[in-house]
Amino acid sequence: MAVSSHGSEDHTVRSFDGELAHLADMIARMGGLAEAQLAAVLRAVSGREAELAARVVGADPEIDRLEQEIYAWTVRLLALRQPLAQDLRTIVSALKVSGELERIADYAANIAKRTIVLIGLPTVEATAGIPRLGRVVQEMIHDVLDAYVQGDVDKALAVRQRDGEVDAMYTSLVRELIATMIDDPRTITACTHLMFMAKNIERIGDHATNIAEMLYYLVRGTTLKDARPKDDRTTAPDPDGEA
Amino acid sequence: MAVSSHGSEDHTVRSFDGELAHLADMIARMGGLAEAQLAAVLRAVSGREAELAARVVGADPEIDRLEQEIYAWTVRLLALRQPLAQDLRTIVSALKVSGELERIADYAANIAKRTIVLIGLPTVEATAGIPRLGRVVQEMIHDVLDAYVQGDVDKALAVRQRDGEVDAMYTSLVRELIATMIDDPRTITACTHLMFMAKNIERIGDHATNIAEMLYYLVRGTTLKDARPKDDRTTAPDPDGEA
Repeated sequence: MAVSSHGSEDHTVRSFDGELAHLADMIARMGGLAEAQLAAVLRAVSGREAELAARVVGADPEIDRLEQEIYAWTVRLLALRQPLAQDLRTIVSALKVSGELERIADYAANIAKRTIVLIGLPTVEATAGIPRLGRVVQEMIHDVLDAYVQGDVDKALAVRQRDGEVDAMYTSLVRELIATMIDDPRTITACTHLMFMAKNIERIGDHATNIAEMLYYLVRGTTLKDARPKDDRTTAPDPDGEA
Repeated sequence: MAVSSHGSEDHTVRSFDGELAHLADMIARMGGLAEAQLAAVLRAVSGREAELAARVVGADPEIDRLEQEIYAWTVRLLALRQPLAQDLRTIVSALKVSGELERIADYAANIAKRTIVLIGLPTVEATAGIPRLGRVVQEMIHDVLDAYVQGDVDKALAVRQRDGEVDAMYTSLVRELIATMIDDPRTITACTHLMFMAKNIERIGDHATNIAEMLYYLVRGTTLKDARPKDDRTTAPDPDGEA
């Protein structure tokens, strides 16, 4: 995707191609920000850096603003250009992808808030599982954004395949956290936060998968018929691990 | 909103008004299903009814299917009718609302899966807090769907105001669950599930609020400038309660 040199002001004189490129730029910028937010919060967890976590929280409104901007831009394109076929699908999918990115960033901010609380509590060994899980998901986001920009369906499908790996790591982390709490009830508050943080990261992986599936639809024109690697991934790991 | 008597097959001969009515019908049907899913799972939690919970899980794909149908229908409307102004906003917001409803239903299904696990574990007294919290959120969904169908912005704003009540109840329930776990570590597994269930319900309230805000935008043409009752509601309650 070519980087646009246009500002947001001159859009009345743009060509439709220029307008689509601007849309792609905004998605790329939003994706880059979401990815950076996750990277920063993982560093904050590892290094117990409250200030860095606070910066992640503070940067979230910028991403929300960008989502609003993309929304307004797509509605404008739909109204003025009345696009058809592939262009129409490109615009509508940009709207959906921006929604996914907003949620990814929202989860990163939520993890950051919990990190700040966590730093005030005694260290729990299982904390190390968070950046470990996070790094896999971070790669998924990076790769799915690359795939989206390049229109590379195979790369997107590879991202989707990794969701199973994330679920396995998440399940094992939840088990470890439950064992830690039972072992030492003084860790319950910290472990509760860690459990939600792990869940948030697992959800980020789901949103990366959603983007991969959207790209598939965008390029191939049909939805992925085969179900996801596992369909009930939001709960199944816990019951299995804990029941 | 008038109930359409058209099937999905005869859309080539429909008027644009008829097509918009069909879109509204699909949204209303999806909203009704999401609301019914939450109601059913709350009954399953109260009555420890595993079969009912399993039915909620089983009904989730129907809602996903409806979201796909709405997506395809909106793309079709955008392509064939090239709508402008209010019609365009109506169609794009239907797309967004269907996304919110899909997530609401997804959370209900997640609660249902955890309910099935919970029924196999010793009863925890704090469980009663789940249907209590759920009922407030159920009313929010009901009211925001009414507001959406009627285009009633005031009603939507009233729904948005209730989100603070949900957060307060959620915070208090999380505190109770943490105290229960510390008190009796044998309840840790059950309380962990209850905590995620409470979080899911609180998130459903957020999605009801999103629909309210979308309706505001749809009717008034501007976004709500004033921030939500609280901006950081996804984490703040826990740190406050637990730190």
